[in-house]
Amino acid sequence: MITRYDRIATSLPEPKGPNPNAASVVQELMGGRFGEMSTLMNYTFQSFNFRGRNEDAARPYYDLIANIAAEEYGHVEVVAYTINMLLNGATKRGTDPTTTPLAGTENARNAYHFVASAQTVLPVDSMGNPWTGQNVFSSGNLKLDLLHNFFLECGARANKIRVYETTDDPTVRAMVGYLLVRGGVHVVAYARALEVLTGADLGKLFPIPDVSNKQFP
Amino acid sequence: MITRYDRIATSLPEPKGPNPNAASVVQELMGGRFGEMSTLMNYTFQSFNFRGRNEDAARPYYDLIANIAAEEYGHVEVVAYTINMLLNGATKRGTDPTTTPLAGTENARNAYHFVASAQTVLPVDSMGNPWTGQNVFSSGNLKLDLLHNFFLECGARANKIRVYETTDDPTVRAMVGYLLVRGGVHVVAYARALEVLTGADLGKLFPIPDVSNKQFP
Amino acid sequence: MITRYDRIATSLPEPKGPNPNAASVVQELMGGRFGEMSTLMNYTFQSFNFRGRNEDAARPYYDLIANIAAEEYGHVEVVAYTINMLLNGATKRGTDPTTTPLAGTENARNAYHFVASAQTVLPVDSMGNPWTGQNVFSSGNLKLDLLHNFFLECGARANKIRVYETTDDPTVRAMVGYLLVRGGVHVVAYARALEVLTGADLGKLFPIPDVSNKQFP
Amino acid sequence: MITRYDRIATSLPEPKGPNPNAASVVQELMGGRFGEMSTLMNYTFQSFNFRGRNEDAARPYYDLIANIAAEEYGHVEVVAYTINMLLNGATKRGTDPTTTPLAGTENARNAYHFVASAQTVLPVDSMGNPWTGQNVFSSGNLKLDLLHNFFLECGARANKIRVYETTDDPTVRAMVGYLLVRGGVHVVAYARALEVLTGADLGKLFPIPDVSNKQFP
Amino acid sequence: MITRYDRIATSLPEPKGPNPNAASVVQELMGGRFGEMSTLMNYTFQSFNFRGRNEDAARPYYDLIANIAAEEYGHVEVVAYTINMLLNGATKRGTDPTTTPLAGTENARNAYHFVASAQTVLPVDSMGNPWTGQNVFSSGNLKLDLLHNFFLECGARANKIRVYETTDDPTVRAMVGYLLVRGGVHVVAYARALEVLTGADLGKLFPIPDVSNKQFP
Amino acid sequence: MITRYDRIATSLPEPKGPNPNAASVVQELMGGRFGEMSTLMNYTFQSFNFRGRNEDAARPYYDLIANIAAEEYGHVEVVAYTINMLLNGATKRGTDPTTTPLAGTENARNAYHFVASAQTVLPVDSMGNPWTGQNVFSSGNLKLDLLHNFFLECGARANKIRVYETTDDPTVRAMVGYLLVRGGVHVVAYARALEVLTGADLGKLFPIPDVSNKQFP
Repeated sequence: MITRYDRIATSLPEPKGPNPNAASVVQELMGGRFGEMSTLMNYTFQSFNFRGRNEDAARPYYDLIANIAAEEYGHVEVVAYTINMLLNGATKRGTDPTTTPLAGTENARNAYHFVASAQTVLPVDSMGNPWTGQNVFSSGNLKLDLLHNFFLECGARANKIRVYETTDDPTVRAMVGYLLVRGGVHVVAYARALEVLTGADLGKLFPIPDVSNKQFP
Repeated sequence: MITRYDRIATSLPEPKGPNPNAASVVQELMGGRFGEMSTLMNYTFQSFNFRGRNEDAARPYYDLIANIAAEEYGHVEVVAYTINMLLNGATKRGTDPTTTPLAGTENARNAYHFVASAQTVLPVDSMGNPWTGQNVFSSGNLKLDLLHNFFLECGARANKIRVYETTDDPTVRAMVGYLLVRGGVHVVAYARALEVLTGADLGKLFPIPDVSNKQFP
Repeated sequence: MITRYDRIATSLPEPKGPNPNAASVVQELMGGRFGEMSTLMNYTFQSFNFRGRNEDAARPYYDLIANIAAEEYGHVEVVAYTINMLLNGATKRGTDPTTTPLAGTENARNAYHFVASAQTVLPVDSMGNPWTGQNVFSSGNLKLDLLHNFFLECGARANKIRVYETTDDPTVRAMVGYLLVRGGVHVVAYARALEVLTGADLGKLFPIPDVSNKQFP
Repeated sequence: MITRYDRIATSLPEPKGPNPNAASVVQELMGGRFGEMSTLMNYTFQSFNFRGRNEDAARPYYDLIANIAAEEYGHVEVVAYTINMLLNGATKRGTDPTTTPLAGTENARNAYHFVASAQTVLPVDSMGNPWTGQNVFSSGNLKLDLLHNFFLECGARANKIRVYETTDDPTVRAMVGYLLVRGGVHVVAYARALEVLTGADLGKLFPIPDVSNKQFP
Repeated sequence: MITRYDRIATSLPEPKGPNPNAASVVQELMGGRFGEMSTLMNYTFQSFNFRGRNEDAARPYYDLIANIAAEEYGHVEVVAYTINMLLNGATKRGTDPTTTPLAGTENARNAYHFVASAQTVLPVDSMGNPWTGQNVFSSGNLKLDLLHNFFLECGARANKIRVYETTDDPTVRAMVGYLLVRGGVHVVAYARALEVLTGADLGKLFPIPDVSNKQFP
Repeated sequence: MITRYDRIATSLPEPKGPNPNAASVVQELMGGRFGEMSTLMNYTFQSFNFRGRNEDAARPYYDLIANIAAEEYGHVEVVAYTINMLLNGATKRGTDPTTTPLAGTENARNAYHFVASAQTVLPVDSMGNPWTGQNVFSSGNLKLDLLHNFFLECGARANKIRVYETTDDPTVRAMVGYLLVRGGVHVVAYARALEVLTGADLGKLFPIPDVSNKQFP
């Protein structure tokens, strides 16, 4: 069970102005394979499915996954608010329909923002494809799930950096900056869990600032 | 069984000119969750699945659903013709390939219009995602199916108004105007059927002109 | 526009008894890639998209496609009724929920028949995957569309024969028998249209009884 | 943001025994169109997207939607635990692979339970199709969203009753019983919200025990 | 089994310059229903599934399908290199993220090129929808499979010509020109195989230069 | 480009007998997220997209990925042959349709095997869902791609072991045994590549026999 607070995880500055196409790209961080719905749902299902969680040896791993799951809810929220802020004021919505208040939106990258919603976030990716449960991995093998999570966080990090590189809108940059910090903590946490469990040192794989858009080290 | 007439349900004025991106948005009214393929197929399957339709008490409900289903076929047609008219003349199609007759279409919102079809309508939505049978609801509980249909018509109404607000092209406006009138009749019809069946007055929910793009009443 | 008649295209005998898994297989003829929704929607969209249909040379081809489209509606209906008859009486539906009236349906091949519908047909295939607009081909090149239709009818014929071979239920056999006759006419019609248009003799490809389940001629 | 508690919303009795096919059907209440992921995500996105929520007139509606969203998280949890309990002990998992510990699972309805997960819940429906963001409706018109939610809860109720009718397993019955009570409260809450907003009395539509599997009132 | 050579099937000139939207359209020839992944996978699965291939009468047909399958791998490669060349230099990728090196890509037709990949090809079509196994037809009836392949090659030809008509970029033109020649050979080969097998003369259907974007012969 | 040999990578013993439901589960190793089509296509696209492959430092990584890609083709083949052998003789296919030669197949787990194909393999997973291009990851960051590949091989290993545990059919066991050996080599190869590139020792993560179906180490 959860208690929900009417508060978001970080404060977001106002955007430069309405920017529907930037909003369209940010949707990847919501409904993409590596978006926040994926991190939320992967860790949530893994926590539901964690057998033997009350045994002393297993408990810390359960706590880790369950706690990050809870935090991810707040990340979904932050991405949602960013997209909504970028869409605010994009049209003269709410005025007389005969004045064509949505004129120009036929050229926007994400038509659903204007036809299916009232210019707000939806659980879709940067091409408008809906988030899908296929994105959830819950194998029931703890090491394999942790390895998945480590990879998922690294992939998410790469996506975030690319969104960061796409726009210098202050809302997007603040949001991505926040998520990079938190995601960085999760990368380290999953790496450390795997190290404790197996002795493997994954910390060397991705010094935190290093999942950049460079191809070769 | 049906007989098909070579006639469409309303006359459509010529569009201002080719407008592929407007055509792309109008596709939502064809292949979207609330598009005309959805109304056609929902009522068609519900009519196939209506048990006890020959009993006196049930018959009027069967007739209502089956008749609206038949009408929706004509709505699919009207949307199809609108999209085709908006795409007519968009390129110099049919001329010498070496003259790049489709130049510029790589920027169009719906690439399928130009690669998969000859600049004509397809059963896809405003993002190019295909219509899917998941959009059909046929629970076999008459009240629930009628409630679904009432909701479906209201949702369809909202989509239509938003498309209307997107472009002042005369073909689109005439088509949407026609559909709003007919859809309005269906909203009332399903509401009235539910009232007769249960006593609930849904007419107050959506005075017909009121499913606008306003958020709060 | 269409007029819909409250009559189905052929009379169907009673099934041997409820047979949910046979119903599940027959769904392929409804919502599969080669099912009746595909033939209906392919020809319907091709007829919508047929440019120049009022020219003398083109008109017969338009009429052919549009007329077969209209007939396919009746085929969708016949498949729907067959599935519904196979599902009738499969459970003690409608009785006291505490008596577990749907017991045993957890083993049925198509769970949607029992949870999403009241044991009636849905627009899905033999694995429960929904029919999709991706199944529609409308290239705007008449020869190519006719070739597609010829292939579609041949593929549909193969699917029908396999369903026929799966069960000797009299309703299924009567329905498939009817569809094989009508589909056979369509195979010939599309072949003949291509012959008139091009001189190619496709009649030799598939002597009608010959799209069997044999691999090699 | 949320705080997550290590507690589930209701106590669940032990199942009669492992029952993979019942678990497969219960998946509809998790990942189906009317499953708990749908109620959770619909209300969550609607709450994210609720403009003007701090105005006095609008606030109660925001609070309603946001609070039910939070409760739905607990329902996702309850369905997850039920499925896991039904799958517990289904095989001799964890023993020597050469002894074929998963023998027999090739006949189970949901192969993902055994190959993709360690016999635990996944975000899929009763046919193994993944939950999809297409299930989320967030139009930004408050009356329309509330009407959707009222319909969603009624549809969910119908699904739950059918699952209840499928098995008399005590865990499933306790879980469904709990969800029916809470869902019933949500039906009333959304109906009441619409009544306050518009004057329409939806309470007559579905006296709570009445969304049964009967077709005609 | 295969041996892979580090060589592509034809030499490709440099493109005029980066052209992400042209790359987006060319994706149809990679991941679309008629793209090279479809030809590769159709013939590959048909060759796997060819029973009795060692019999003298059947062997030539097996060899035909298996050999074209192998060639199609090289076509997938050629399309991939074309897309990559069109995307090369589209951004200042690899430079300091704070300088917004991906600025402008939020307006590109295929967001996955910039967020999911490093501006390289992906197995998706011109609308970003992923290639799917639904595109594979392998009926096990040799005539039907050959007819499918003949149709598939004709449909692929139509798509290629339309891409050719969209851009005069030299890389695209050289690539499409090469594929048209090879695809033309496959059209003839499948037609000839059907002629030998059945006597039907499909050569008249599509004189090779004739699957143009004209509607009527 | 490739050369294809008419030879499969390992010899497979005859199965105990026809076993359609085992074949249905083995499909996960063909068309599932972690199936052989996924390994083939991931490495193939990564090799297409590998920039700077001719530089000395990068070349060994390109060679690694490209060579494993080529080998995976042979794995797709081995899985295909296994499925086909398990389906051989499942029915009296090819005999007189009126004798219901496919009787009983309505209860089989994968209806496509009997309706869409002639009892042969298709590019679908264990629930009949088609393989999709969404399964391909090609980020263009070498370390991230290698980490993905390491994870993919580990996940594939888990799936294979579970299939091994499902049936003691000798063909399946021989096929899985072969794939486990080769997959084990790939796990080590990707781990070693990451170690050389970064210094991280992933070998400790998964001593080869250790991705079992146990949950906790």
